Amino acid sequence: MSRYFTKTLEQLEPYTPGEQLKRADLVKLNANENPYPPAPGVAAAVAETIPGLRLYSDLTEAKLTEAIARREGVPASCVLCGNGSDENLLLAIRAFCDEQTPLAFADITYSFYPVLCQLLHVPARILPLRQDFTIDLEAYHGLGCTIVIANPNAPTGLLAPVAAIEQVVRANPDHVVIVDEAYVDFAGEGASCLPLTQRYDNLLVVRTFSKSRNLAGARLGYCVGHPDLIADMNRVKFSYSPYNINSMSEAAGAAAMADEAYFQKTLAAICAARADTTRGLRQRGFRVLDSATNFLFATTDRMPCAAIFAALREKGVLIRRFDAPRIDNWLRITIGTPQQMERFFAALDEVLAGTGAE
Amino acid sequence: MSRYFTKTLEQLEPYTPGEQLKRADLVKLNANENPYPPAPGVAAAVAETIPGLRLYSDLTEAKLTEAIARREGVPASCVLCGNGSDENLLLAIRAFCDEQTPLAFADITYSFYPVLCQLLHVPARILPLRQDFTIDLEAYHGLGCTIVIANPNAPTGLLAPVAAIEQVVRANPDHVVIVDEAYVDFAGEGASCLPLTQRYDNLLVVRTFSKSRNLAGARLGYCVGHPDLIADMNRVKFSYSPYNINSMSEAAGAAAMADEAYFQKTLAAICAARADTTRGLRQRGFRVLDSATNFLFATTDRMPCAAIFAALREKGVLIRRFDAPRIDNWLRITIGTPQQMERFFAALDEVLAGTGAE
Repeated sequence: MSRYFTKTLEQLEPYTPGEQLKRADLVKLNANENPYPPAPGVAAAVAETIPGLRLYSDLTEAKLTEAIARREGVPASCVLCGNGSDENLLLAIRAFCDEQTPLAFADITYSFYPVLCQLLHVPARILPLRQDFTIDLEAYHGLGCTIVIANPNAPTGLLAPVAAIEQVVRANPDHVVIVDEAYVDFAGEGASCLPLTQRYDNLLVVRTFSKSRNLAGARLGYCVGHPDLIADMNRVKFSYSPYNINSMSEAAGAAAMADEAYFQKTLAAICAARADTTRGLRQRGFRVLDSATNFLFATTDRMPCAAIFAALREKGVLIRRFDAPRIDNWLRITIGTPQQMERFFAALDEVLAGTGAE
Repeated sequence: MSRYFTKTLEQLEPYTPGEQLKRADLVKLNANENPYPPAPGVAAAVAETIPGLRLYSDLTEAKLTEAIARREGVPASCVLCGNGSDENLLLAIRAFCDEQTPLAFADITYSFYPVLCQLLHVPARILPLRQDFTIDLEAYHGLGCTIVIANPNAPTGLLAPVAAIEQVVRANPDHVVIVDEAYVDFAGEGASCLPLTQRYDNLLVVRTFSKSRNLAGARLGYCVGHPDLIADMNRVKFSYSPYNINSMSEAAGAAAMADEAYFQKTLAAICAARADTTRGLRQRGFRVLDSATNFLFATTDRMPCAAIFAALREKGVLIRRFDAPRIDNWLRITIGTPQQMERFFAALDEVLAGTGAE
């Protein structure tokens, strides 16, 4: 820190993203990215925007907002886009929390929530997951503060039922409940709380283009909620980054949203590989949680997970491990292509057999 | 505001950006955008990124940072990119201001500074421009707080000499001085404070790709300063938007930075049109400030400027007017192509003659 840095942020512990290792033959299974390229229409949609880049992007992001609204079956006034869903989370926490209104979330969940709380001087209210890593949603009834629930949760991959989250929304009528559905597309029909946004004015659903829409590098997220909540977040947006979405990402997102067939095809491929990978890990003596996402959360007694992680890394297979209480002997493995998963298992078998580690 | 909106931001007055009017034949001279498309290499550079959009963007933005460092002749450790220079300003104000460390700036300057102060609960210390709209830089000596100076200033277009700004930097050794050089490329050789960043550890120079680099729609800015200042801002960035720059904008920016010939050619065309437009306005009885930017700030006694603004708008010529003290009878006119400026003058002559108003 320089001597000019504000004392109010001295304690700040910045977010640690997944490692970006440079290695040509890398099997990158550490950031829950999609193994398939963006929808075929994205390239042409982006190319069309290039001459117009001399002009500012559309402040209202109308084209993208309408593509999302059409796909999700909600009015466009219920939708707000963000420069990544991280930005939607930032706008929501800034709009609906303050020093008197904490943010409640699980002890094991997306590690960006506590970082945002620190940055924005919002008290965090941490509710532990149960021993089996499921969320005790009844503990969220009548909390008297803003709530964020990742569903499916990360890094556990576990899904909570919509009906139980609806009870949380009903039991906190004076506070906003944010449901972070970054991974919900991998959870199958009926897993999303999005339809409930049309019935409750205190529910905000956050989504991303980084996972199921193959666009992590475009930095795009969106959220859906009552028009009044969206207007609140727009007030903050216009004070902080009016032109938050660039014209290329807007076009890419609209094209991705419009291609339902490609979306379903890549989703099905990932879900099939997830089933195969779960089976393969269990056959090798791993305990694997039932995943509703594009990653698996797994542990084993055969070898310390930290050692497995390090040995795989040596072999050019990058997965994720968290140096955090309760989960430090677990591994998070992103689902890649069948070919990537074959390479993962080949490396894992060598590691477990104690061979080829040179 | 919904009943869930934080009371701490009730007084927030969001930034008002330039109007985005939909009209096919519009002459858009209201947002200081560049009239020429991005450099020819931008399209191919962006197209190359599309397959890789499935992956997160580079956290360190190495390719873009290096392109900037090479062009500006500074080490890459002195450079930080932003999702628009607005984001660089946000990161800097968050890092170097707080409730005890106000931000000082002119009464007439970029209207986003007071908005950011409100959002971040940073007190604003307003120093009035002189009667002739020049900055009284001696008033900034020993201020005891963080300072931002737009140079050239907006909306006046006036340039302060580097030597006078250097005195401000020297006279505030315990605080950061931010020089917002959004328009400096239009100010000619030797107008920038950027070389001074290699000599003073409390100087931060902020730049944008939105004006002279023809990329407003890509949302890209950067700042240059001592590596310790950049590290401070990175601490904030990693707590708020680690992947702030998307892969397409990174590639577009690097390509634009690398094409010096196109940059110089479009710059020269805009400066020539600026001279012609200044002359044309003065011939019509306008007082026009000497502009070091890609816009003019002008006033006249022939007609109220609000009436000129409205009548031009009716004719599809959009310029900018500010409903603010001291400048409410002034007009800000972006420099477009020679053809756009001809249409501007044709419409202006009709307005001044009181003809063809419908």
